[in-house]
This record gives sequence, structure tokens and C-alpha cells, in this order.
Amino acid sequence: VARTREYDQSQLLDRAMTLFWQHGFAETSMDQLVHATGVSRSSLYTAYPDKRTLFLAALQHYLDTVTTASLQQLQQHERASASVRRFMLHLVPQRDRHGAPNLGCLLTNTAVEMGNSEPQVAARVRKAFARVENALASRLATAQAQGDLGPEYDPALLAKQLLVLIQGIRVMSRLRVDKRLLRDAINSALAPLS
Amino acid sequence: VARTREYDQSQLLDRAMTLFWQHGFAETSMDQLVHATGVSRSSLYTAYPDKRTLFLAALQHYLDTVTTASLQQLQQHERASASVRRFMLHLVPQRDRHGAPNLGCLLTNTAVEMGNSEPQVAARVRKAFARVENALASRLATAQAQGDLGPEYDPALLAKQLLVLIQGIRVMSRLRVDKRLLRDAINSALAPLS
Repeated sequence: VARTREYDQSQLLDRAMTLFWQHGFAETSMDQLVHATGVSRSSLYTAYPDKRTLFLAALQHYLDTVTTASLQQLQQHERASASVRRFMLHLVPQRDRHGAPNLGCLLTNTAVEMGNSEPQVAARVRKAFARVENALASRLATAQAQGDLGPEYDPALLAKQLLVLIQGIRVMSRLRVDKRLLRDAINSALAPLS
Repeated sequence: VARTREYDQSQLLDRAMTLFWQHGFAETSMDQLVHATGVSRSSLYTAYPDKRTLFLAALQHYLDTVTTASLQQLQQHERASASVRRFMLHLVPQRDRHGAPNLGCLLTNTAVEMGNSEPQVAARVRKAFARVENALASRLATAQAQGDLGPEYDPALLAKQLLVLIQGIRVMSRLRVDKRLLRDAINSALAPLS
């Protein structure tokens, strides 16, 4: 008889995701994961035989929750230009630099830590970035149709620019730079949008 | 009597820098550093009592060599707009995605890995980024004076945008994305420059 799982899978992945997000893959130990998730060691190892398997599940959980919620913001306004602006400015950390650490983005952190050494992980991150790029390109095309982006601009090119800029914002956030720098950078990049 | 150092300091730092650049701080061991630098364990520990001390020296070496050489490119053309464009496009990895791993930028990698947990390291990286930002702002102001950047643009704002974009390029390079994506992003950001 299959036993019912004695823990909340989504909560487990939330907690594992947060640990990896904060400390990265290498600096997070299975001991820390057992402690943070509150799941027994044997249950954790039964579901995820090694740290890499758990990491891949946590990365997928990040895509399903954090990334998906973030992309939903892009659909929130009738005027696409307002959606794009809000989406970009929302990436700027709200807390001041004396507050809690800013985690940046798990995808960005993973690209830097594992992009070189883990082709399978790199492919997943590239796929997630393509999803963000496509969502931005679609909204920018709508903004152009709504008259808020001049015909001299190419929505697809601007989407690529914003995708790369987002990675930069995530890096700089982790470093706790002055948030005005990030807002200025975003507003400069969005100058073509009215 | 002080003994002459029996190794080449600059070569040692070159090799340590390359290891940290490739694998990050956490994933580089003192054993690997001893092996890669070719310096005896006792000599290495005498000069650098722990990995963190050696990392800080390697980071400074990166600033003195790689960053400085990169910023010199910004001065190479009479027309500042050509300098800025070449500087930015030079960030795109030359090798294809099946070639050697692209290391991105040690500063970017460090921002992601240690920005949250090491305030002293974060401060050094912020300072280095400010140096890049100032160099860009200065060249963009020259480009404006030379008539290659319209008066409606603010060189200081555009410099912030490019600084953040550079970090994004570095992240994406490490992930081996299609280099056309990076070139498109750069050309889109540099559209105001003629």
C-alpha cells in the first residue's frame, strides 16, 4: 500500500528554492535543506536522491510560481506600455540597502553559477529566458499597435534588450547598488515607450 | 635577511584569477590553487594565509589588468560613439557555443556569488562598476559634443543603462546564449548613437 506523503510538497519546494536562491547550489548543503524544509532526512532522500535532483525540482518550482507570477504582471494593464514599464520597475528591490538581503533572481544566479558547467541546467535557464523574451516582445508589439511605441522601433529587438537588461538588474540588485541607478537605467531603456 | 620570492607574483595572480573566474569562490579549493599556480603550499600560505585573502588579491589583479585593458578600448577612437560601440560589442563572446567555456566577468560573477554575504567584496565591486559607469558617461558626453548623440539624451543616464546591460551580457555569455541575441540587444541600446 502506497503511503500518503507526510509533508507538503509545495512547501518543501518553496523552502528549498529559497535556500538555493539565497546561497546558490554549491553553498547549500543537504543538511541545511533537511533543516529548512522540516522534512525527515529519509523522506527527503526518498523523493530527491541527491542535491542536484532537488535543485532541478526547486528551479522548476521557481518557474511555475515566481516567474509565472511575474509574467502575469505583463498582462495587467490594457495599455501594454504601462504593463512593460511596471514589470521592469518592479524588478528594482523595494528594500533599502540596510534591509534584508536581496536575492536577485534564481535563474540569473543559476546562469552565473552553473551555466558553464551544467549544460542541462543551462538549457533550462535559456528556455525560461526565451519565455520572458517572447512575453516582452508580444506586449511591445501590442504597445506599438496601440501607438505607444514608434514605428521605427522593432519590438523583437527591444525585447532582447530588455531581457539582457533584466539580468543586469538582477546582478546589481544582489550587490545592493543604489536603486536610483536601476530606475534610471530602466527609464533610459524605456525611453522609446510613451 | 629577507629571501627573494621564488615565484612570479603576477603569474600567480593570473592563474588564481582564472580559477576563481571559471569556478567561483566557493568551488575553488586551496588545493586547486596550489596546483594551478605551481607555487609551493608553504609559499602560497605565507603570502595568502587563507583563500579569501588570495581571492581579494586576484580580484584586484583583475581590476588592474582585465578591467583596465577593457576601459582603454574606450579611448581608442577619435569618435567617441565608435569607441562605445566597439567596447560594447567586444563583450559578446567570440567563440561559438561549442567552444571553450565563456567566463563572463569576474566582477559580475562575484556580485552574484558574494554580493549578499560579503559587504567588503560587494563594496569593491560597486566601486569598480562606478569606474566603468564614469568612463562610459565621459565618452558619451564626448559623443554628444561630437554630434553623435542627440541633445535629447542624457549621457549619464545612458551610461547607467549600458552599465546594467553589460552585467546582463556577462550573465547571458556564461549561459552560452546565441550571440546574435547579445548583438541585437547592444545595437538596440545604442540606437541613440550615430
